[in-house]
Amino acid sequence: MEDDLENTLALLERTPAAFHALLSGLPEFWARRNEGEGTWNASEIVAHLIHCERTDWMPRAKIVLQHGEARTFDPLDRSGNQKESKGKPVGTLLDEFAGLRAASLDELRAINLREQDLNRRGRHPSLGVVTLSQLLAAWAAHDLTHLHQLTRVMAHQYREAVGPWSKYLGVMQCAGHSSAA
Amino acid sequence: MEDDLENTLALLERTPAAFHALLSGLPEFWARRNEGEGTWNASEIVAHLIHCERTDWMPRAKIVLQHGEARTFDPLDRSGNQKESKGKPVGTLLDEFAGLRAASLDELRAINLREQDLNRRGRHPSLGVVTLSQLLAAWAAHDLTHLHQLTRVMAHQYREAVGPWSKYLGVMQCAGHSSAA
Repeated sequence: MEDDLENTLALLERTPAAFHALLSGLPEFWARRNEGEGTWNASEIVAHLIHCERTDWMPRAKIVLQHGEARTFDPLDRSGNQKESKGKPVGTLLDEFAGLRAASLDELRAINLREQDLNRRGRHPSLGVVTLSQLLAAWAAHDLTHLHQLTRVMAHQYREAVGPWSKYLGVMQCAGHSSAA
Repeated sequence: MEDDLENTLALLERTPAAFHALLSGLPEFWARRNEGEGTWNASEIVAHLIHCERTDWMPRAKIVLQHGEARTFDPLDRSGNQKESKGKPVGTLLDEFAGLRAASLDELRAINLREQDLNRRGRHPSLGVVTLSQLLAAWAAHDLTHLHQLTRVMAHQYREAVGPWSKYLGVMQCAGHSSAA
């Protein structure tokens, strides 16, 4: 268990830098292109991560620890990224995400979770009863889902340009689109 | 066209740092886990990128420029990563990939491609006639495919741990597995 938590913290620590390495200083082209109407571009993806960092992961962990199943989590607003991203360059969003993540992890470490805390239960508005351990795993897997989405959105811009190579490029066949979190 | 090439170079420049940000210093756990028998772990993915950097992208670009369709590209050895990765820690592989990529891009920039060069044609051993422009686009999209794969391999380790969240996490439903390059 302790190892699982350490592996998860190590990943949560690194994902902001991975987004930064990929997106920072890229031509604006890369921040603004999406996969078609109603899909997110790179800026909107980072803004979604900012929104989740503010309203979702640590706030929900604290609800589990303080109220258990008695208080259902607030539902996530999937359009919450709109007000986060408004007019901000992607570099600003990347810095905001990194700052918020560092603060979240400081807060999580300060709680100094014991093994039995990880089994504590909370109530998700649509998924029902979940454990703190599942919440922390979902936090890390959610980072990965959106980095996975970002690479797909970027690869989408090469759909025509790669010509016959398309069939060899797994990312072009990805159907792993997120619904909500 | 010039913009396309600049956008592609900007991406090719950044992907080694994105792999580095995500993997460097992570607990060994993350470098060694895969998606099951016959699939690649993080080390094997980075080693594949090293192998492609040595044998695939710039070597093929030079064949196009020097021989056109007259000389078919050498087929890619998909198991070529085995000899690259042998016993090396992932940190070493990440540094090798970054060094090789920087050298490839120096070489590409030194060629100083003109617009008409991008239409030059070469012969892929299985795809047939391809253009230099398609080769460069495939190079960038191939980076994205393997970063996409890496996030999926990492997320796979959370398949059970996330419990009911699984259905909200797109990366858990990804079927965009690569075949060859």
